[in-house]
Amino acid sequence: MAGGDELKLLGSWLSPFATRVKLALTLKGLRYKNVEEDLSNKSELLRSSNPVHKKVPVLIHNGAPVCESTIILQYIDEAFADIGPSLLPSDPHQRAVARFWAAYIDDKLVIPWVRSFRGKTEEEKSEWMEQTFIAVEALEGALRECAKGKGFFGGDNVGLVDVVLGSLLTWVHATEVMSGTKMFDPSKTPLLATWMERFDELAAAKAVMPDVNRMVEFKTRQAQAISVAAASQRQ
Amino acid sequence: MAGGDELKLLGSWLSPFATRVKLALTLKGLRYKNVEEDLSNKSELLRSSNPVHKKVPVLIHNGAPVCESTIILQYIDEAFADIGPSLLPSDPHQRAVARFWAAYIDDKLVIPWVRSFRGKTEEEKSEWMEQTFIAVEALEGALRECAKGKGFFGGDNVGLVDVVLGSLLTWVHATEVMSGTKMFDPSKTPLLATWMERFDELAAAKAVMPDVNRMVEFKTRQAQAISVAAASQRQ
Repeated sequence: MAGGDELKLLGSWLSPFATRVKLALTLKGLRYKNVEEDLSNKSELLRSSNPVHKKVPVLIHNGAPVCESTIILQYIDEAFADIGPSLLPSDPHQRAVARFWAAYIDDKLVIPWVRSFRGKTEEEKSEWMEQTFIAVEALEGALRECAKGKGFFGGDNVGLVDVVLGSLLTWVHATEVMSGTKMFDPSKTPLLATWMERFDELAAAKAVMPDVNRMVEFKTRQAQAISVAAASQRQ
Repeated sequence: MAGGDELKLLGSWLSPFATRVKLALTLKGLRYKNVEEDLSNKSELLRSSNPVHKKVPVLIHNGAPVCESTIILQYIDEAFADIGPSLLPSDPHQRAVARFWAAYIDDKLVIPWVRSFRGKTEEEKSEWMEQTFIAVEALEGALRECAKGKGFFGGDNVGLVDVVLGSLLTWVHATEVMSGTKMFDPSKTPLLATWMERFDELAAAKAVMPDVNRMVEFKTRQAQAISVAAASQRQ
């Protein structure tokens, strides 16, 4: 990293998308300034840096903003190609496979999972949760295919897919704490179960993943606020 | 391209996503075998090459399948980096900007546009069409930013965003023929209007874009079939 390089991350502690960028920067050994955004009152810097979506994360590198988490991850890999490990392999076909699963996680796992919380009826929530489990099982197959007996989707090292999926683990752990049950059955997805343990032990994960207890407190307060608002609407 | 390279595209003439791949291969000067899939009766090769989504396009390069159109475009750029023009610029920031707008087109233009046809009520269709127009106006700004007075999103040459957006033009033209009106107001998006004309004149576009009249015939027959089915349901 050239001495004059300045990296600023506009993020939020609870955003898995911002966590992805923190993981990538940390894995690369890049120093950055973390700017915590108040998502209910977004800064002018965030609005002007990401005028289209106005969302975190935004990585500002020497004044130039880059938006959208998986695009930022590829940017970090390309702009700092000579620093630290690569998130994407060098082989074009393996790169395409990694991009495929990274997109799959956002489209087929994150979206259904979020909808499983926000569904209007219990039946709707249950259907979205079913879609989430189908995606998890597909990812078990992807891990078998990509890791080829090694520890990560990226093989011996953490790669793009590991970062994209790993960024969700605090949410998984917080959901498990709040429900008192395991979210996934390790006998159905044994490779992912071991992968999760391995990911949690990474120095980069320990350094930047949000604290599970803080997430549980936040989610509990959020659920209480929704419950109070619903009760006052019924009155 | 090495003498032994074999490229096979599993596509469909009416799929803009398959058209993207055809455009990229043609721009690169790469020879490929086009395999037309019957989307109502997908081949075993398609199902086994894209077991997750079972969708076209799939590019099979020396037996190895690559899925998802924008991932295929990047694969072509990387696997054949030394052949023909590049779809992505070399500068990491410009690459991130191109990826941003390519993703924007799929998320904010294609999805609302498709929903504007499929909406359950006229109001719903109209709302989705409104979203489509908002995306088109954003793309006018993107073209100004990316082209910097030159002809294409990729500057002097056709790039990733040009291919992703250009692949939709037959659908635009067919919709205009069927409705008898211009879909977009050139006075609101003058840069895009000129860009469309310039894109249609490209040798690659003339070689691979689907025929507008064929598309109109197909869409007319499809609309008639839907109308007949709806009438028989009402009886």
